[in-house]
Amino acid sequence: MVVYLVGAGPGDPDLITLKAIKTLQKADVVVYDRLANEEILKYASGAARIYVGKRAGAHSKKQEEINQILIEQGKKYDNVVRLKGGDPFVFGRGGEEMLALLEEGIPVEVIPGVTSAIGVPTSSGLPVTHRGVATSFTVVTGHEDPTKNEKQVQWNYNADTLVILMGVGHLEENIQKIMEHKDPQTPVCVIEKGTTPDERMVLGTLENIAQKDIKPPALVIIGPVVDVYQSIQSKKR
Amino acid sequence: MVVYLVGAGPGDPDLITLKAIKTLQKADVVVYDRLANEEILKYASGAARIYVGKRAGAHSKKQEEINQILIEQGKKYDNVVRLKGGDPFVFGRGGEEMLALLEEGIPVEVIPGVTSAIGVPTSSGLPVTHRGVATSFTVVTGHEDPTKNEKQVQWNYNADTLVILMGVGHLEENIQKIMEHKDPQTPVCVIEKGTTPDERMVLGTLENIAQKDIKPPALVIIGPVVDVYQSIQSKKR
Repeated sequence: MVVYLVGAGPGDPDLITLKAIKTLQKADVVVYDRLANEEILKYASGAARIYVGKRAGAHSKKQEEINQILIEQGKKYDNVVRLKGGDPFVFGRGGEEMLALLEEGIPVEVIPGVTSAIGVPTSSGLPVTHRGVATSFTVVTGHEDPTKNEKQVQWNYNADTLVILMGVGHLEENIQKIMEHKDPQTPVCVIEKGTTPDERMVLGTLENIAQKDIKPPALVIIGPVVDVYQSIQSKKR
Repeated sequence: MVVYLVGAGPGDPDLITLKAIKTLQKADVVVYDRLANEEILKYASGAARIYVGKRAGAHSKKQEEINQILIEQGKKYDNVVRLKGGDPFVFGRGGEEMLALLEEGIPVEVIPGVTSAIGVPTSSGLPVTHRGVATSFTVVTGHEDPTKNEKQVQWNYNADTLVILMGVGHLEENIQKIMEHKDPQTPVCVIEKGTTPDERMVLGTLENIAQKDIKPPALVIIGPVVDVYQSIQSKKR
């Protein structure tokens, strides 16, 4: 019995790793939530499937319940795959699942994936680092409800580039807080549905980005690398 | 003519993406520097190879020269692959190469890879984010010579987790600067040669990590997620 926490990548089904494919191929069961593209489940064609994500009109399963399902499956099967979008340890609650499984004596292996935080801007030709412009970047989740979060996020991140994952729901309030620390003219790029055929880029500044029409799922990139992206775009013929 | 900037992943040859494999398979020529594992060149078995990385006892080619090689190859061949470790836009100077190629009218596509900054800790069971512990992480290069860098790095990064790539050469001086802003008892984990059979983990604190025997290439992870990693390790049976 092994539970594999596997990263599925940012959306494009070809951005999965070879290791993830090989692990899916030997899976007895795949436990997954909403994926950008369910096509990758084809690699586990012989496996049982357990969906634990959101259903329209229903809440997603609580983390406790998911942990319980993983423990049950881990005790039952040799190869259990817990498939997650992006990388399992970038806001994927993989650490909690790993701890819960190890508590029950179930071995866990973790297979990284291309995180949307980097893979989406990279695919679009937006470099999160650039010599002389950005020698650091911070990745943060915009998803946490600030009123419920035991850890008060200050939004004063001081790296050269700021990437917000799952940033649409609280965009306006988070941008307000970021503007307490950064120039309102700082360039911003929002990428909707990155690495999929429906990808859409929205450009703006801290001051005006929240007024634009943006739909989730989307990634928000803030900082002077957005100017580098625009300079790259202007050179395309 | 297209030049593909392709990420090779963090080291384990199975951590390459399917898209990178498909692109290598159609390559006419592969321009590459030192890779953690040259095994992946097998996917481009029919392609010419141009090595532009460091040789023992010699300097690596200057970025200008590499840009020039890419332009020449791009004009000559239909499918040129520029292969880089990790992700091409995470301290890979991919943005500069892309700009130089577009200036010459050569189209560029960028294929993201699993960056070592995330893929290495994830593979080792060290979550860079963890609910209630770390809702943000910063990635920075430790490689820049602070005396030569036009952009003075302050090392006062305030995300919950700090990941330093290429951090060994300037480790002691950088850790000194970080300690001006963080508790000397902050836990630190160094991962040498991550995702390879020679991987080695070194644990310590900001105060004592620079005294330990650490060899490049290595990644440095600083923050309370290192305690989560130790708690995960203690549960393994």
